Amino acid sequence: MSDSDIQLGAGLLADVGELDQRAGGVLLLTDSNVEALVPTAWQRLPRHVIAPGEQSKCWAELERLLLALDAASLDRDGLLLALGGGVVTDLGGFAASLHRRGIAWHALPTSLIGQVDAAVGGKTAVNFAGGKNGVGTVHLPERVTIDPTALASLPLRHLLSGMAEVLKTALIAGSDATSRALSLSPGDFAAAAPAAVVVIQECVATKQRLVSGDLHDHGQRRLLNLGHTFGHALEAAALGACTHGEAVGLGLLCAARFSGAAALEQTLRDALGSWGLPTSSDTAPGDLAAQLGRDKKRRSGALTVVELRNPGEVDLRPDVPLAEVLEAFEAVLDRS
Amino acid sequence: MSDSDIQLGAGLLADVGELDQRAGGVLLLTDSNVEALVPTAWQRLPRHVIAPGEQSKCWAELERLLLALDAASLDRDGLLLALGGGVVTDLGGFAASLHRRGIAWHALPTSLIGQVDAAVGGKTAVNFAGGKNGVGTVHLPERVTIDPTALASLPLRHLLSGMAEVLKTALIAGSDATSRALSLSPGDFAAAAPAAVVVIQECVATKQRLVSGDLHDHGQRRLLNLGHTFGHALEAAALGACTHGEAVGLGLLCAARFSGAAALEQTLRDALGSWGLPTSSDTAPGDLAAQLGRDKKRRSGALTVVELRNPGEVDLRPDVPLAEVLEAFEAVLDRS
Repeated sequence: MSDSDIQLGAGLLADVGELDQRAGGVLLLTDSNVEALVPTAWQRLPRHVIAPGEQSKCWAELERLLLALDAASLDRDGLLLALGGGVVTDLGGFAASLHRRGIAWHALPTSLIGQVDAAVGGKTAVNFAGGKNGVGTVHLPERVTIDPTALASLPLRHLLSGMAEVLKTALIAGSDATSRALSLSPGDFAAAAPAAVVVIQECVATKQRLVSGDLHDHGQRRLLNLGHTFGHALEAAALGACTHGEAVGLGLLCAARFSGAAALEQTLRDALGSWGLPTSSDTAPGDLAAQLGRDKKRRSGALTVVELRNPGEVDLRPDVPLAEVLEAFEAVLDRS
Repeated sequence: MSDSDIQLGAGLLADVGELDQRAGGVLLLTDSNVEALVPTAWQRLPRHVIAPGEQSKCWAELERLLLALDAASLDRDGLLLALGGGVVTDLGGFAASLHRRGIAWHALPTSLIGQVDAAVGGKTAVNFAGGKNGVGTVHLPERVTIDPTALASLPLRHLLSGMAEVLKTALIAGSDATSRALSLSPGDFAAAAPAAVVVIQECVATKQRLVSGDLHDHGQRRLLNLGHTFGHALEAAALGACTHGEAVGLGLLCAARFSGAAALEQTLRDALGSWGLPTSSDTAPGDLAAQLGRDKKRRSGALTVVELRNPGEVDLRPDVPLAEVLEAFEAVLDRS
């Protein structure tokens, strides 16, 4: 499959217009928090509404959505529209990949984490058997429509969670993108300020560049895991007490520490703190070690860390000993 | 993904040898009828056994298999071995495509329909919401190991069902392949006679040629639907009273009639009759019309029929009026 067609601009949601005639049928997926954002032109479409939040990203909800696609008589030329945050686009893309062995879908991400990360690149999933994203597919959306004005309705904690992903992607993109990201405040995103839109655009372009040619995550796409080896372990060990973005923010500090980039670590720490994101955690080292051990098992027994020496200087380092990762963790988290 | 590595030969199952070391874990899927064919070298592998038959090709069984893959701790480098008929390979390939967003799998088809059709080409599915293969994916097996000696244990009716698919594929391949297929008896397949192995090989090569370059079924792969527009409607209208292959056999007669190939229709009728496959049906025309109407809805309102003028002369004919298809049906089925 070729790349998704990505459209980005303030006000796009208000201006979607009627959909092209789709002989194969259309279903609109959203959640009850986001439902207010359904464009006027789409009010009459068949609609499937899920409860907001991570608990909807599950096997039973996937089955209900597949039954809804069947009941709406979508055939192989049908189209699923997924309007919402990462849960909606992860679940919707997954169902679209399975119905009649795969139909087209459009992602309309309304959260910051969705706009810069989840809705781009075609990874779909639900949580399964206690594991995050345990089952899923890779199924690129035909189109991604990103309207930053949707962020105005996002709770602050969700917005902050997205800012950690913005920072991650900007660090991969380079020093200019990083400077621009560091200069923004949560309010800039909530107001869809032009400078924030530029940074979202940079993040989307960076992600799309890394995904293109490595859809199945065997090479360059894995750079997007920057901060995530640490972040996933923290998030899992915190048992829901910290958001994905909060964990990724701490993960970026760990990645800088792991790579010996002390000055950068301090810069990032100052930024996270000024935004209101945590810069320390009281998670027990033993819990982290257990989670890292689980992660290690997920890919043939080796831990791979994305090194971060400077903005734009990121590299995969495979076969990292567990102890070395833990050391960076403890050094960072102790500084509270 | 590139083509599957396909290995075919009498005795391959007895000679699989130990698997290469797989750091990511291995799970063997089979059904309780086929379990006796598990190679000695694989006796100690973790095993997931399903009940035989179409009722196992369902959403609940897919969930159980995914839980088993999780419990067996297969990571992204894991491998699923699917040993059995079409139900086992359709279900196994589906689960492999979802676990950790896709792991490798090997198909070891033990039924004739599996060896010449279901296990080649990567289409996976379970039945869903009353529809056959309602949800699924396309996920090529890394390897397909075809051992015709497995057919010795196949019930005659299953073997005959497979012979209709053999005939279909031979008709696509050309006149030489068709002549060779028509010269065989069920006993030749049950005994894995060299002439039968040659025909299986021809069918596999033909299917792989059509699948390669059209994995997602938008073009040449659709020629493999020869006899299936008719066959699917018959199978659905008969509500389980006829096997897939029995319906496809009748579907081939309809395709020949539809294409004005009277002599070929008679040749096929004689062959099906001599093998013991039905050449007529008491299905009510109204039930067939209803099923064809459903099929029509599955792809933007148009019926597409694969025309069969001569062996090797097959073509897609789109936008066929329902009445024309029904006419061929009635003409063929009335001749009982």
